[in-house]
Amino acid sequence: MTLPPDTPDLTVSPGLLTDRYELTMLTSFVTDGSAEHPAVFEAFARRLPEGRRYGVLGGLGRLLPMIERFTFDADEIAWLLAEGVINEATAEYLRDFRFRGDIDAYPEGDLYFPGSPVLSVRCTLGEGVLLETLVLSVLNHDSAIASAAARMAVAAGDRPLVEMGSRRTHEEAAVAVARVAYVAGFASTSNLAAGRRHGVPTVGTAAHAFTLAHTSEVEAFRSQVEAQGVGTTLLVDTYDTEQGIRNAVAVAGTGLGAIRIDSGDLADEATAARRLLDELGATGTRITATSDIDEYVITALADAPIDGYGVGTRVATGSGHPTASMVYKLVAVADAPDGPLRPVAKKSHDKVSVGGRKTAYRTHDDGVLTGEWFTTGDAVPAEATPVQVAAFRGGRTVHSPDLEAVRAHCAAALATLPPQARSVAAGPSHLTVTEGATS
Amino acid sequence: MTLPPDTPDLTVSPGLLTDRYELTMLTSFVTDGSAEHPAVFEAFARRLPEGRRYGVLGGLGRLLPMIERFTFDADEIAWLLAEGVINEATAEYLRDFRFRGDIDAYPEGDLYFPGSPVLSVRCTLGEGVLLETLVLSVLNHDSAIASAAARMAVAAGDRPLVEMGSRRTHEEAAVAVARVAYVAGFASTSNLAAGRRHGVPTVGTAAHAFTLAHTSEVEAFRSQVEAQGVGTTLLVDTYDTEQGIRNAVAVAGTGLGAIRIDSGDLADEATAARRLLDELGATGTRITATSDIDEYVITALADAPIDGYGVGTRVATGSGHPTASMVYKLVAVADAPDGPLRPVAKKSHDKVSVGGRKTAYRTHDDGVLTGEWFTTGDAVPAEATPVQVAAFRGGRTVHSPDLEAVRAHCAAALATLPPQARSVAAGPSHLTVTEGATS
Repeated sequence: MTLPPDTPDLTVSPGLLTDRYELTMLTSFVTDGSAEHPAVFEAFARRLPEGRRYGVLGGLGRLLPMIERFTFDADEIAWLLAEGVINEATAEYLRDFRFRGDIDAYPEGDLYFPGSPVLSVRCTLGEGVLLETLVLSVLNHDSAIASAAARMAVAAGDRPLVEMGSRRTHEEAAVAVARVAYVAGFASTSNLAAGRRHGVPTVGTAAHAFTLAHTSEVEAFRSQVEAQGVGTTLLVDTYDTEQGIRNAVAVAGTGLGAIRIDSGDLADEATAARRLLDELGATGTRITATSDIDEYVITALADAPIDGYGVGTRVATGSGHPTASMVYKLVAVADAPDGPLRPVAKKSHDKVSVGGRKTAYRTHDDGVLTGEWFTTGDAVPAEATPVQVAAFRGGRTVHSPDLEAVRAHCAAALATLPPQARSVAAGPSHLTVTEGATS
Repeated sequence: MTLPPDTPDLTVSPGLLTDRYELTMLTSFVTDGSAEHPAVFEAFARRLPEGRRYGVLGGLGRLLPMIERFTFDADEIAWLLAEGVINEATAEYLRDFRFRGDIDAYPEGDLYFPGSPVLSVRCTLGEGVLLETLVLSVLNHDSAIASAAARMAVAAGDRPLVEMGSRRTHEEAAVAVARVAYVAGFASTSNLAAGRRHGVPTVGTAAHAFTLAHTSEVEAFRSQVEAQGVGTTLLVDTYDTEQGIRNAVAVAGTGLGAIRIDSGDLADEATAARRLLDELGATGTRITATSDIDEYVITALADAPIDGYGVGTRVATGSGHPTASMVYKLVAVADAPDGPLRPVAKKSHDKVSVGGRKTAYRTHDDGVLTGEWFTTGDAVPAEATPVQVAAFRGGRTVHSPDLEAVRAHCAAALATLPPQARSVAAGPSHLTVTEGATS
């Protein structure tokens, strides 16, 4: 009946969630014989969004099962042929295609910085190009949200955050937003599909429409308390907030769970609300603030008597940075099916990359992250901490932590940042990842 | 084999793509007996994004089929019960739930302004609250993209635009981006699922990885031309752009379809490329520019010898405004199953709305849009043009134009804007929609 936690939706085939040129390139590789040549692809970000000190990797737990299911059915292949995207030899290649390679990855919820090799894909040239668009769609979207959500969660400290931005983004993106905001430290979401598919705790009580639909605010509160109990959250600002609070306590009693304020100057409104609630004896009733909340507002409201926040638009749109600008690059390729890998890198203009497969490691000082480096070998210095985990081996997922473990990993990773890197104030990336010493 | 054009994906049930509080409110309405009371809900934007002169409505053609399929299966209902979201009476209500109401809407691709009643939903209170989140997810996302894409298409004029932002947004949002960018005037997309599901023309040739994967650029171009023919587009900036152009013409001949430039100062690069192509005799070879293109860059490059643009990040993220900030409000409700509708509106703080169902109309002067107004009756002045169409009647879609018709409607709507409103420069909304005279 209930799906196991963090089960991705399995009904949509991901094979065509890709750019035509991936199939066009594959067609050339099949035609010129290089589709089976060994290759290494790498996903990384050249930079963080302006002013951000760190990024948080999101989406790996959604991506890996989609890679397992990345196939093409007969109808899709017929369509690709009819559209002239592929030729008959490529159709033959796709008929039994599935990704059979190996993937190393940063764990979901971990930090990343400019140059961090967050995903390293060892496969054939044909396999590697086919995955590009899907890898980037998932990692760029989910990492943008995770990175914004982590800043909000860090700013909020012990005050719980509810993700409620579903209405501000694509209906399926909304589910991914809810999932990854939870990874980054949000307490819950309004999105029911995220609850069902991924096990994210869901919350929600009522909108202004609920009050308006009744003949009076008192009637609305009575109806809600009757259905939900006095522990519910009553939305008190439909007509007049002071009267709304008086009505709320009159209906629910001093055991009322919480009130929600969704308009006005939130510091002033919360201060007045706290005073009135205390006067009325509802000293245990919590105050939840919603309406244009983000990491900056949360920081500014640090001294206001607010017990929790609902965050909508700003988390669902990455707080000004809705995509993480990761790229996926070929970094090594062999010139024969059994040939040696040669590092490759595009060199024109400012887009310089380092070729070759990379192994990342970190250094810490008393628990604080002091450096992140990569080597182009397999080994890292003895005192360093490796970052990557084996995610895929021989075409199968070998890394599938449950969502609570991913969330705990994220919290632990954020705790390694020094105070200035955890600040919401604009600043440079805490680190830039470059080639370091080998062991 | 091929799906008919603009067929939405039918495999994901939309019932749980919603906020928990919609189900919580429904539970109260079922409990207090008001779930069957007649109601009117309206979707509209209070404002446009800062500096925007107009909005373009996107997503209606995706939304209406999802409303038809908005149901809850036995597993979903059991999950909602187990999670404590609903009670048994509400479970009973949901078992045979489907939306049975009427919807009037602005046609997809049409313009909207602050106050435009883009969607008017006449139904029961229970039906109306259940739809809120899905309506807003689809309209906010798709309208944000349509509005940004239209500005780019207007700026580009006769130069075709390719939508290629799939890797910068959620993998399913990417399909919606491709669909609605086409509605707004883009010529094609890189996204194959958008081609298959919605009939959007797809294009794509090769990435830098393709060149890097070969032992030389010449080898890569040979492979591509062999597979794709000389009409293909060769990406010439992997190593050195001038040499890349020479290699491209040497391999493909002067009949080469196009070159693509993805880096550097695009005006300088395009000017040098045009000169060299002409020198080499490839006078018919087109130049496509990609890399951080948006409506401002397109405007700045108006005099450059560029024949078309590929637009990625900026269209997929709404060019700085990834959501359209539409809201969905209860505007009228009856206090009994057969009672009369009373207008309602929230009045606290600055969020003032006009209650009651609205009929929108426009005035034109010599084809130029001069005003948009609404009445709270059914009739509009004789000389005015009604805006809304009947979209849903008795729970069934009665408005399902094909995507080419939607695209033509958008082009016609954009053509009614005066020149200053079509400018990409920041300015106020061309119109604000308020109550006007009735006929």
